[in-house]
Amino acid sequence: MKLTFLGTGSGVPAKHRNVSSFALHIMNKEGSVWLFDCGEATQHQILHTSIKLRKINKIFLTHLHGDHIFGLPGLLGSRSFQGAETPLTIYGPQGIKDFIEISMKISYTFLRYPLDIKEFKDEKPLFECDEFIVETGQLIHGVPSYGFRITQKDLPGPLLMEKIKEAGIPTGPHLKQLKKGSYITLNDGRSFHGRDFIGPPKKGLVVTILGDTKFSETAIRLAEQADLLVHESTFSAEDGELAFDYYHSTSTQAATVAKLAKAKQLLLNHISSRYQMEDAKELLHQAKEVFENTVLAEDFMTLQITKHLRD
Amino acid sequence: MKLTFLGTGSGVPAKHRNVSSFALHIMNKEGSVWLFDCGEATQHQILHTSIKLRKINKIFLTHLHGDHIFGLPGLLGSRSFQGAETPLTIYGPQGIKDFIEISMKISYTFLRYPLDIKEFKDEKPLFECDEFIVETGQLIHGVPSYGFRITQKDLPGPLLMEKIKEAGIPTGPHLKQLKKGSYITLNDGRSFHGRDFIGPPKKGLVVTILGDTKFSETAIRLAEQADLLVHESTFSAEDGELAFDYYHSTSTQAATVAKLAKAKQLLLNHISSRYQMEDAKELLHQAKEVFENTVLAEDFMTLQITKHLRD
Repeated sequence: MKLTFLGTGSGVPAKHRNVSSFALHIMNKEGSVWLFDCGEATQHQILHTSIKLRKINKIFLTHLHGDHIFGLPGLLGSRSFQGAETPLTIYGPQGIKDFIEISMKISYTFLRYPLDIKEFKDEKPLFECDEFIVETGQLIHGVPSYGFRITQKDLPGPLLMEKIKEAGIPTGPHLKQLKKGSYITLNDGRSFHGRDFIGPPKKGLVVTILGDTKFSETAIRLAEQADLLVHESTFSAEDGELAFDYYHSTSTQAATVAKLAKAKQLLLNHISSRYQMEDAKELLHQAKEVFENTVLAEDFMTLQITKHLRD
Repeated sequence: MKLTFLGTGSGVPAKHRNVSSFALHIMNKEGSVWLFDCGEATQHQILHTSIKLRKINKIFLTHLHGDHIFGLPGLLGSRSFQGAETPLTIYGPQGIKDFIEISMKISYTFLRYPLDIKEFKDEKPLFECDEFIVETGQLIHGVPSYGFRITQKDLPGPLLMEKIKEAGIPTGPHLKQLKKGSYITLNDGRSFHGRDFIGPPKKGLVVTILGDTKFSETAIRLAEQADLLVHESTFSAEDGELAFDYYHSTSTQAATVAKLAKAKQLLLNHISSRYQMEDAKELLHQAKEVFENTVLAEDFMTLQITKHLRD
């Protein structure tokens, strides 16, 4: 998987940081992209990447503040205008359905593709398929705000070719059966079981993406042992009172969550436009004092998420 | 007055042309700006200009297609976030009030300034003050789409200082009375009437800004003798059938409206992203064959509108 940051600012757009959105590249055979939040001009940011709107098949929304959702109506319309016919599912807090439906209706926007809007308010798993489970938990913000824990299921282990050779099993279509873990009988009468020729499963990745929040126990739970934690860091450690008053986190609080959760890497996101250049680097420095493997998110940064982060 | 083009594309944003919006600088003592249409990322475009959101006190919307309104919720919120407390009035077709109200409510956006939303559907003057009249007329598009004729009232003529000197009128506060057109009596007993010392009024400017439309008689009426006509030119002259099918105009049709209306200058706007660089210049060339004083609008272009255009 990889994650492309499309908007890493907070509240209002600034020249170098747009409002919130990021794209998780699932790297499956369809090349699916899942979008997390969709602030205004997310589709404009996407124009400067290689992401195709038709490849976005899921959008997860952390909360309903404008800087996280006002890009939705335009992106949905453009996805249709560009000819997408494949389904799109949106997962968002209660209220999002009204916003989307009235936006589409008032603007006479007709979507050529099936759109399914799933509102949630509790913490059940949102979604599960062969490859992934997406769970949610409620954070602490002025309005209902959620985090997502995306767990990639373990991948089946590889076929142990050396062992197959040693056993004198010839190549052929029966290797596919072995790979599936099935029992096979060769033409010469010998029988083998797949389980004896498959290596250990490859552990799946865990990515945690959080909405706006104060320091939160739920955040720690969602980020437990995550390979990557994306946590807001709206304010500097010195501006803790502002963070408290506005229901946001400081850089140090984000790092503390990463540390307590034993996450493998932390990305500081949702940086207030009051911190430019050197000031923003100071946020990174503060976080690194608590949790070393921290990166400051920047618009258009793409991060490969690989297992070596865990080990 | 001057006009800044913030978005000159059509339908969906492209790298070099955003979706519709332009800012009319009223050049009054408050430095007011009137916005016409507000496609997604209009506030982002404004970040690259000297326009302050708090100076925008009127927004006129030609129609409700997404590429003309999806920037509204974000811009309204950011105007408040930046501390604006002065009133804002939005004039738009029926339905816009629902869109704005639900967007603000769902996103928990609280505006610190008074917002007045005036929906219109007929062709009465929308607005009149000491300096301006704004009238509207319905064009021909797939959905209700309107044009605006902004008439600056004639400015009072200048005080004829040479004539005052010849009449032996000394300088002093009574000159202000003369300028107002009042009757004065000097200490020496002589009397004068202001009307005899004021030059001819300075003709106000007329600016016509149209929404999306096919070739339309109403467009011609709204643009009559206008100093500047902004007309959509979504398609090239060769793509007349596409223009017809999608309720848009070609470059040549825009130029024909300007010619029949005896406008002084034409701006081709709302250019389809299918025309890049040289192709877009071809649209300009086609229009110029019909109406010479034509300019192709580009994002961030600012045009001074002055009376010499009329003469």
